[in-house]
Amino acid sequence: MTVAARRSTCKEKDRRGRVTVVGIGPGGIHHITTRAIDELRSADSIVGFGLYVNQIRSIIRPNARVYSSGMGHEIDRASLALELASRGRRVAVVSSGDPGVYGMAGPIIETVNKLRMKVDVVVVPGVTAATASAASLGAPLMTDFAAISLSDLMVPRNKILERVESALKGDFVLVLYNPQSRSRKEPLRLVHKMLMKYRKPNTPIGIVTAYGRAGERTTVTTLVRMLDHEIDMESTVIIGNSSTKIFDGKILTPRGYYSRGQPTRSRTRTPSRTLR
Amino acid sequence: MTVAARRSTCKEKDRRGRVTVVGIGPGGIHHITTRAIDELRSADSIVGFGLYVNQIRSIIRPNARVYSSGMGHEIDRASLALELASRGRRVAVVSSGDPGVYGMAGPIIETVNKLRMKVDVVVVPGVTAATASAASLGAPLMTDFAAISLSDLMVPRNKILERVESALKGDFVLVLYNPQSRSRKEPLRLVHKMLMKYRKPNTPIGIVTAYGRAGERTTVTTLVRMLDHEIDMESTVIIGNSSTKIFDGKILTPRGYYSRGQPTRSRTRTPSRTLR
Repeated sequence: MTVAARRSTCKEKDRRGRVTVVGIGPGGIHHITTRAIDELRSADSIVGFGLYVNQIRSIIRPNARVYSSGMGHEIDRASLALELASRGRRVAVVSSGDPGVYGMAGPIIETVNKLRMKVDVVVVPGVTAATASAASLGAPLMTDFAAISLSDLMVPRNKILERVESALKGDFVLVLYNPQSRSRKEPLRLVHKMLMKYRKPNTPIGIVTAYGRAGERTTVTTLVRMLDHEIDMESTVIIGNSSTKIFDGKILTPRGYYSRGQPTRSRTRTPSRTLR
Repeated sequence: MTVAARRSTCKEKDRRGRVTVVGIGPGGIHHITTRAIDELRSADSIVGFGLYVNQIRSIIRPNARVYSSGMGHEIDRASLALELASRGRRVAVVSSGDPGVYGMAGPIIETVNKLRMKVDVVVVPGVTAATASAASLGAPLMTDFAAISLSDLMVPRNKILERVESALKGDFVLVLYNPQSRSRKEPLRLVHKMLMKYRKPNTPIGIVTAYGRAGERTTVTTLVRMLDHEIDMESTVIIGNSSTKIFDGKILTPRGYYSRGQPTRSRTRTPSRTLR
């Protein structure tokens, strides 16, 4: 081995690995940030769930090595990514939406700590399903909202229901992630029963499925009719609070700009001027 | 007027106006989606709060007309944008973070309905402060979370406190938007008092200020010391739930991947394979 090669090997051993956990938005490639695109392009190794890796194939380097897996392998995926990074690879872990909202940021950080690895973890935020779905529906989230996942794989069902109940008592707008799947329909039915207890039957409901992808669908309906509609693993469900309304096919939770017929807190001096 | 000019004028009158409400992310230009960039580049008229308009000046057309205003003019800004759109302009309203999270989507939709204008409203989602701040801190939001604004301009203070209390009872991770300003410090003190009642003094707290901008700061601390730190209008505060921990300077709310020392629900068959 030459001196240069030996020096290079030593440098690699001393260099800490780095994993970037990249939020790729809700679907397609148009809701990805320029920072996320740069990170994906810089990576020589891409790790992720197959569907999401396919979503961003047009962005990654042609010679990047891709490690694609099926559902439910978050810890294995995390371990693999960290192992590759500790060997000097530039690793990007692909996470749908935002990595910190029921995504890969948690498994990566839990694993790097459990395994005591000398790997830096950088999280690149993305557009999460709550805000993408809300954009499709109008402005349902304008006041305080709570995000709850109905996936009961790791959180006990009664805990999920307690959370829903607290959020309803606080009059939050609710955003349901992972609302149901073909094999998991009971949690949503139980939640619906609870919703009917705390909210009026005509409470606005928004269901957005496959945002940004082929087959994208947006449904505006009311609470009493919620379960009549198709809701699956690609859906996000938004449940209005006590003030939420439907206007012209859009859902709006007013923030109080218009109270008793006139604008509030909109100061009366000339508001706008043209600048170049 | 020539026949062609008259026809053109008639077409313009029949054409519905269109306002795009564009989320520009938390700061800088790197956390903007490619769709948002396209919309900003297509617009001939840009409407927004001065600070946010300046953030994206490098993206907009050189000859775009810019209508920039001070704080608190949401309804006036909305009315102006809709008026310009109804006259045939391609209008983009700039909204920090995501337009539907305490942003401009609500005022625009409320106003288009109040004024019964024939203008289409399209909302382009962006990266909101909750997820940007979380990315800076590690993975604090991995389970269910609630977003609450402490701005009491339009929502009564007691209502805000009730919401905080419900979220605490439900063991949500909390994200506080607009936590305090030079003239508005009392709400955060009252919230802190309530937090100390429901959470342990060593509950992890994250404070992220000016994410993506000059002067960006990230602080990881504990609940009992929260008010010792600088928190202002550009800050987002994240309050852990009963499971949240600090590891190696990062905040993590575990989702249950590691229970009783071993991974749960990580199926044992070979999880990863290389694809090209």
